[in-house]
Amino acid sequence: MLSIPDLIKKKRDGNALSDEDIQFFLQAVVKKTIQEAQTGAMLMAIFMKGMVATETMALTKAMKLSGEVLSWPEEWAELVVDKHSTGGVGDKVSLVLAPALAACGLKVPMISGRGLSHTGGTLDKLESIPGFNVGQPLPKLRSILAEVGCVIVGQTVSLVPADRILYALRDATSTVESLPLITGSIISKKAAESLNSLVLDVKFGGSAICKDLASAKALGESLVTAGNNLGMNTRAVFTHMSNPIGRCIGNSVEVIESLETLKGKGPSDLMELVSTLGGVLLVMTGKVSSLSEGVRLITESDGGADFWPKFPGP
Amino acid sequence: MLSIPDLIKKKRDGNALSDEDIQFFLQAVVKKTIQEAQTGAMLMAIFMKGMVATETMALTKAMKLSGEVLSWPEEWAELVVDKHSTGGVGDKVSLVLAPALAACGLKVPMISGRGLSHTGGTLDKLESIPGFNVGQPLPKLRSILAEVGCVIVGQTVSLVPADRILYALRDATSTVESLPLITGSIISKKAAESLNSLVLDVKFGGSAICKDLASAKALGESLVTAGNNLGMNTRAVFTHMSNPIGRCIGNSVEVIESLETLKGKGPSDLMELVSTLGGVLLVMTGKVSSLSEGVRLITESDGGADFWPKFPGP
Repeated sequence: MLSIPDLIKKKRDGNALSDEDIQFFLQAVVKKTIQEAQTGAMLMAIFMKGMVATETMALTKAMKLSGEVLSWPEEWAELVVDKHSTGGVGDKVSLVLAPALAACGLKVPMISGRGLSHTGGTLDKLESIPGFNVGQPLPKLRSILAEVGCVIVGQTVSLVPADRILYALRDATSTVESLPLITGSIISKKAAESLNSLVLDVKFGGSAICKDLASAKALGESLVTAGNNLGMNTRAVFTHMSNPIGRCIGNSVEVIESLETLKGKGPSDLMELVSTLGGVLLVMTGKVSSLSEGVRLITESDGGADFWPKFPGP
Repeated sequence: MLSIPDLIKKKRDGNALSDEDIQFFLQAVVKKTIQEAQTGAMLMAIFMKGMVATETMALTKAMKLSGEVLSWPEEWAELVVDKHSTGGVGDKVSLVLAPALAACGLKVPMISGRGLSHTGGTLDKLESIPGFNVGQPLPKLRSILAEVGCVIVGQTVSLVPADRILYALRDATSTVESLPLITGSIISKKAAESLNSLVLDVKFGGSAICKDLASAKALGESLVTAGNNLGMNTRAVFTHMSNPIGRCIGNSVEVIESLETLKGKGPSDLMELVSTLGGVLLVMTGKVSSLSEGVRLITESDGGADFWPKFPGP
């Protein structure tokens, strides 16, 4: 068995780490038997030398297994879905898509995040609804999902602890923009949700993280490969983004715009994005046989908009 | 002013850090306001991207100034010298050279180290003499130097604290073999001794750290440039090393062999190495006008061997 300095040296010199190497490193990270300086050096070595596909797989799998993995009633096996978006200003897709998919009979356990730099986070937007609680224990999450069909919550401490530790260090050590590290972070969390199908909304253009289609394709391919490898049916949708999505930017007004969209009165760019991503998931789960049928089903669903809290119009 | 993540990113992307950048980084290391993961990531970025000459200078100078800098009586200004060796099995040069130089009228404040991996350290060797104390406070160090002319002690906590912190982390993060980091570590400690002249014993060959003359020359050039830049008259001597030095390996037998060498009865390889390095320092300080004269002076000096503790013969 190699020591941690040996593993760092191996990656530093551009060699591929084995599955055992990566498991050993991640266990040391989670059990805190590694020095933080060693984690920082390893992250920088991974950032600079990259990872081959087998390493990214091993990393993603080991991250998933670093904590609790959710389980669902057997009868939901084909139904549990989620989407991940690379995000952007005005992106309120989750708020519309989750109830729309639930209205189509799917189960949507969305574990969502806070705002990053200048983009708002789904959790921040939901908390603009007075009394909305984004911190639900797992049994409650399961009962909401059984009753309502969708739930949007924050990450729990028990899910993918390796990601929580590494993500904080990546931010501090300037190792965020690394394809294998991004892939590990995103896909491990989705895999820990034990999804049947996952759709990825990968944006490119002036307002997106990926500035061009080529870099978006590289990211999408890495994510799709890792997702499928971990047993989730995974597809990516590439959308050009040179403007914020919809007409509203700001936590509460984006919630209001989302409700209007669920009633069929949303801006066309948001409607199209939601119906496409939802349509793809309906095809992937076998609920419909064509994308056009899926798009129609999502467009006609209202996601129980009438049961949402009443807001004054925008 | 850039933040620590900005500085890491700058080096990660292969850009040269400014003097201010390097001072800010090192101050954060010494004051412990930096996260260890950030230090680890920065060390790896420096390891992988290297440093240009101006960065190495700034690093070495900032390391020197991270702690106390020794000062000497004015009348010693031209006399204070030291040598640094890249070391090797059986290297007992310091034990012979320090008293030989003192016998020639120079002042030799050697701050020495412990064994690294399979090579013995000068301090370990000296401690095989019963009662020998390698931990002397600075005033005592100065009085020994005034009286005896040479002193060999361990590093104090007040001298170059940045090196103590970085060195431990370099070992843990597999970033030891980096030319700028090696240069900073070696030269900052010598510069903090406020030397007039420094001779470097750079070894190459099968038993040395540098396996060939080219890598030894690169190391020597980096060290000499940094030393001269910090105001020390610095020269390097390159020696081929494919065997241990002398006939004895082991702490106490190496001390005995050193005493025999001081009496002129040492092995020829050790005699040659000591007289060359000492001869160079005698030329550099103006004590003699040619290397051959310097070599003769060192060879004829006995370094007060008769005053050393009595050992049974080897």
